Amino acid sequence: MPIRTVVWGENVHEQTNRTVAALYPGGMHRAIADALNADAGISATTATLQEPEHGLPAARLAETDVLLWWGHAAHDKVDDAVVARVVEAVWAGMGLIVLHSGHFSKVFKRLMGTPCNLSWREAGERERIWLASRAHPIARGLPDHFEIEMEEMYGEPFGIPEPMETVFLSWFQGGEVFRSGVTWRRGAGNIFYFRPGHETYPTYHNPLVQQVLRNAVHWAHNPAPRIADATAAPNRPVGEALEPLTERGGKLHQPGEEGFR
Amino acid sequence: MPIRTVVWGENVHEQTNRTVAALYPGGMHRAIADALNADAGISATTATLQEPEHGLPAARLAETDVLLWWGHAAHDKVDDAVVARVVEAVWAGMGLIVLHSGHFSKVFKRLMGTPCNLSWREAGERERIWLASRAHPIARGLPDHFEIEMEEMYGEPFGIPEPMETVFLSWFQGGEVFRSGVTWRRGAGNIFYFRPGHETYPTYHNPLVQQVLRNAVHWAHNPAPRIADATAAPNRPVGEALEPLTERGGKLHQPGEEGFR
Amino acid sequence: MPIRTVVWGENVHEQTNRTVAALYPGGMHRAIADALNADAGISATTATLQEPEHGLPAARLAETDVLLWWGHAAHDKVDDAVVARVVEAVWAGMGLIVLHSGHFSKVFKRLMGTPCNLSWREAGERERIWLASRAHPIARGLPDHFEIEMEEMYGEPFGIPEPMETVFLSWFQGGEVFRSGVTWRRGAGNIFYFRPGHETYPTYHNPLVQQVLRNAVHWAHNPAPRIADATAAPNRPVGEALEPLTERGGKLHQPGEEGFR
Amino acid sequence: MPIRTVVWGENVHEQTNRTVAALYPGGMHRAIADALNADAGISATTATLQEPEHGLPAARLAETDVLLWWGHAAHDKVDDAVVARVVEAVWAGMGLIVLHSGHFSKVFKRLMGTPCNLSWREAGERERIWLASRAHPIARGLPDHFEIEMEEMYGEPFGIPEPMETVFLSWFQGGEVFRSGVTWRRGAGNIFYFRPGHETYPTYHNPLVQQVLRNAVHWAHNPAPRIADATAAPNRPVGEALEPLTERGGKLHQPGEEGFR
Repeated sequence: MPIRTVVWGENVHEQTNRTVAALYPGGMHRAIADALNADAGISATTATLQEPEHGLPAARLAETDVLLWWGHAAHDKVDDAVVARVVEAVWAGMGLIVLHSGHFSKVFKRLMGTPCNLSWREAGERERIWLASRAHPIARGLPDHFEIEMEEMYGEPFGIPEPMETVFLSWFQGGEVFRSGVTWRRGAGNIFYFRPGHETYPTYHNPLVQQVLRNAVHWAHNPAPRIADATAAPNRPVGEALEPLTERGGKLHQPGEEGFR
Repeated sequence: MPIRTVVWGENVHEQTNRTVAALYPGGMHRAIADALNADAGISATTATLQEPEHGLPAARLAETDVLLWWGHAAHDKVDDAVVARVVEAVWAGMGLIVLHSGHFSKVFKRLMGTPCNLSWREAGERERIWLASRAHPIARGLPDHFEIEMEEMYGEPFGIPEPMETVFLSWFQGGEVFRSGVTWRRGAGNIFYFRPGHETYPTYHNPLVQQVLRNAVHWAHNPAPRIADATAAPNRPVGEALEPLTERGGKLHQPGEEGFR
Repeated sequence: MPIRTVVWGENVHEQTNRTVAALYPGGMHRAIADALNADAGISATTATLQEPEHGLPAARLAETDVLLWWGHAAHDKVDDAVVARVVEAVWAGMGLIVLHSGHFSKVFKRLMGTPCNLSWREAGERERIWLASRAHPIARGLPDHFEIEMEEMYGEPFGIPEPMETVFLSWFQGGEVFRSGVTWRRGAGNIFYFRPGHETYPTYHNPLVQQVLRNAVHWAHNPAPRIADATAAPNRPVGEALEPLTERGGKLHQPGEEGFR
Repeated sequence: MPIRTVVWGENVHEQTNRTVAALYPGGMHRAIADALNADAGISATTATLQEPEHGLPAARLAETDVLLWWGHAAHDKVDDAVVARVVEAVWAGMGLIVLHSGHFSKVFKRLMGTPCNLSWREAGERERIWLASRAHPIARGLPDHFEIEMEEMYGEPFGIPEPMETVFLSWFQGGEVFRSGVTWRRGAGNIFYFRPGHETYPTYHNPLVQQVLRNAVHWAHNPAPRIADATAAPNRPVGEALEPLTERGGKLHQPGEEGFR
C-alpha cells in the first residue's frame, strides 16, 4: 500500500501575491503533492488552512502516514486544537516533514521545545546544499551537492535542539550557512526539517528538491501500528508487580486511582 | 559569586497529607534549598505555587542562574504566562533541574516536545541508581551505584526525546527500569531531569540525593550573560550582506519589514 | 531481493563446552541464521573464525547487506586485516549487528572508539528487557517488556558512546541494569548492539529474541549503493571551485598532489 | 590550580617549509601554548613528535588535564603505543582538543570510529565561522560570526559520528561548508574538534581563534579524579550480588576467573 501522505499548505500568498500565484497556480501544496505522486509508493493529497479544521479532522489524521507542513504568514491562525491533534499524531507514529518557513509553525515549535529562530534575507541569492551524511535514505539518488539559484537566505544560529542526524548543510552567496536538513524522533514519530521553499521562487519545481521530499516521505514513514495511548501513564499496581513486592511506607494514592497530570 | 538558585515547590501535599508534612515540616522546597546551601558555591532560595506569580516574577527569573522544579498535584494550576517566562529564561541561558513528578509539569513538557509519560507504582519499593556515565560532573563524589530503600516506581518507556547524555539508570525491586538522570540543552539552557523524590518518602534527606542535586546545580549553571533576544529572528538586509550581493527575483517583504512569525 | 545477511560466529565454545554443544548442535551462528531465514525478506548464511579469512573475504563482504557478529573467547584471534575490512564495509554502508559478548570484539571497539566495558556475572539469572522507544522498527511486534529466564548479567556503566537511540533497557534479578539495545550510525552503516545471548543458555531459541534479530536486520539494511570511496579525501582544485576564487598565500602542496593522511 | 595543558605539535613543516617557519618561528605548538598561557587559569607546555615517546610518556599524561593535538604530514610516524596511551587517557578523563589536519591523526580516528575524511583546497580563501549554539562555553566572548581571511578549505561531507553538540559551522569563499567546531564525550573525556589552523597562514595568531582555544581548554577539562580502571570489566560474583540470587544453568567460567576480552 502506498504511503498515505497529506501536504498541508497555508495557501495565503498564493491568493494575495502575483509572483506566488504565477509560480504555483494550483497552490504550493498542489505542486508538492504532484511531485510526491510521481512516486508510485506515495499517495499524496492536500489540506489547507481555509478548510474546516484546516483540512485535518481527527479521522483524516488517523489515516495519514506522513504529513508535510508549509506555513508562513498565518502561523497564528492555526487553531490550537488542530495543533494539539497533529502533535499527538506525531507522538503516536505519524511522520512529519516541516518545510522552510514552517520552522515558526506552532506544530514545529511545540515538538522541538525551542524558539526555532534564525536570521533571514529575501534577495534571490544562490544556495548550495551539501550532503553531510553520505548514503542517508533522505539523500537517495542525490549528488554530494546541488544548487538552487534563487532562494531566501536562512542563517545560523538556528534555534533547534541538537538533531538526531544532520543530513544537509547550506552555503549562501551572501555569506551565511544553515543546517538545512535535520532529523529528530519525537515519541514514535520521525521528523524531518527541510529548509528550501520560499514562495516567490520556483523551488518546488526543482527536480532535486522534489527528490528530497519523496525520499523524506519514505524515511519518515513508521509502518508500525499507530500507538493508541501515546500519552498514557499507566499505574502498575502492587498486586500485579512482575517481581514479588510488599507495599511499604506512606501513601498518596488509593488503589485504582489515576495519577496526577 | 555563588550560583543563584531557586527551588520551586508546588507545596500542596505538604499542607494536605500528614505523612508529607511530617517528613518535610518546612516543605520539600525548603529541605532541598537547605541541602543546596550546604555548598558554599550555591545560594538557594525558594518559591511556591501560592505566591504571587508563583514566586517567579520576571525580575526574579532574570537573577536566577538555576531553577529546580518540583510539582505533582497542581500542574494545571501553574499559570501559562509563568510557564512561558520560565521556558524563555531557559532558552536564554537559565539552568533547569526537573525533579520526580515534575516530568508532567507544563514547563518540562513544553521544553521536551514529547508526552513525558511513564508507568508508576506507589509501593515504597527499593530503587537502585546506577551510574551510566563515569566521572560525569553530575556524579561527582558518588559511587557507581546507590540505593534508596523506599521510593515510588517510575518505569519505561519514558516519553522523552533521546537525551544528550544518560547519566543515571534505575533498577526497581518490582521489576522495572528507568532513565533516572538525563540531560538536554535547549537554547542556551542546560536541563537535567532527576527521577527520585516521591513526597511520602524521606528521599530529599538522603545525603547522596542531595549530592546529586548540588552537582547538578553546578553542571546546569551557564555563566555566559543571559541572551537578551533568545527568540529574535533578525533580518540581514542585502545592503549589509557580508559578501557582495545583488537582489534578484520576486519579493514578499518590503525593506525594513519584520518577518512573519 | 531479500537482505543478504551473514551471521559470523566464533564457533569455539560449541566445540569445547558440552552445554553449549548440546544447546546449539550446529553452532550458534547456524541457529541464528535459521531464525533469520524464517523471514522471507532475509537470506542468511554463516561464516566462522576457522574458515579462510574467517569466512569474510572482500568479495563476500561486498555482497553482504547486513553482518551479525558473535564472538567471546577468541577476540584476539581475529585477524586485523579482516577487522579493517569489516569496519570499512560498515563505513561504506553495510549494516552491523553486534551480539552479546561481541561488545569486546575488535570490530565493535574500533567502531565505537570507547572501551566497551561493563560488569558481568554468569549465574543464570532472570533478565527482563524493557522497550524504551515505543514503535521503534527494531521492536516491531514485541510487547513493552519480555523476560529471558536465564541469562548472564551485564551491568552499567557500559563504556559506549552516547547512542543515537536507546531501544531496550534490561533489568537483572541480581540488581543491575543495562542498555541492552542501542543504535549508532558510523559513515553510511547502521549499527545495533543487542545484549542477550550467553552461550550456555538457550537464548537464541527464544522467539522474541529471534524477532528482535529479524527486525534489526531490516532496520540495519541501507539499500543505497555501497559507497565506493568511503575513506577518500578529495582535493577540490582552485580551477574547479564552485565560486570564483583566486589563489592567495603560502602553499604546501603542488597542484595535483594528494593530501597527507 | 590552573588547568595543566599540553600542546602537542608534529613540528615538521616548521622545519622544512620557509613560509611556516616564518609564521611560527618557535613552532605552531609554541604559538598555541603562548596563547593559552595568556589565561591565568591555564598552564600550557608543549610536546613534539621528535621527543622521546613524542614527549608524552605515561607519567606526563597522568598529569595532563587537557591535550591539544596538531599533526599533518607525519600521522603515520606516531607510535601506536603512544596513541593507545593517549586514547586511554581520554577514556579516563583527559580532555582532548584536535586541531585542523589532526582530523586524520591516529588518535582522532581511533576515538571517533569513522574515517574522518573530508574534501580540501589550499587556496588562501576566506572562511567565515558561524556560531550554531549560542552562549556555548566554547564560544564565550565571541560574536555570532567571525572571519579568517586566508585559510585552507575543508568541505563536507565530513566523516565523523554525529556530534554531541555542533558549536561552529564554516562558510568558504569557494562554495563549501563544514562543521568546524563539534564536541563528543568518549568515556570520561571531553573531545572538541576545531577546524582552522593550516600551517601556511597566520591562523593561530588570530585573537578570536586563540579565544576559542582558551575556552575549549576550560570546557574540555574534567575536574573529576582520573578513572583508574577505565577499561576494566569486573566480575560481580553471585555471592556478592546486591539482591538475593541462586546460581542456575550451565557455566563457562570458574569462580574467580577473569572474563574473555
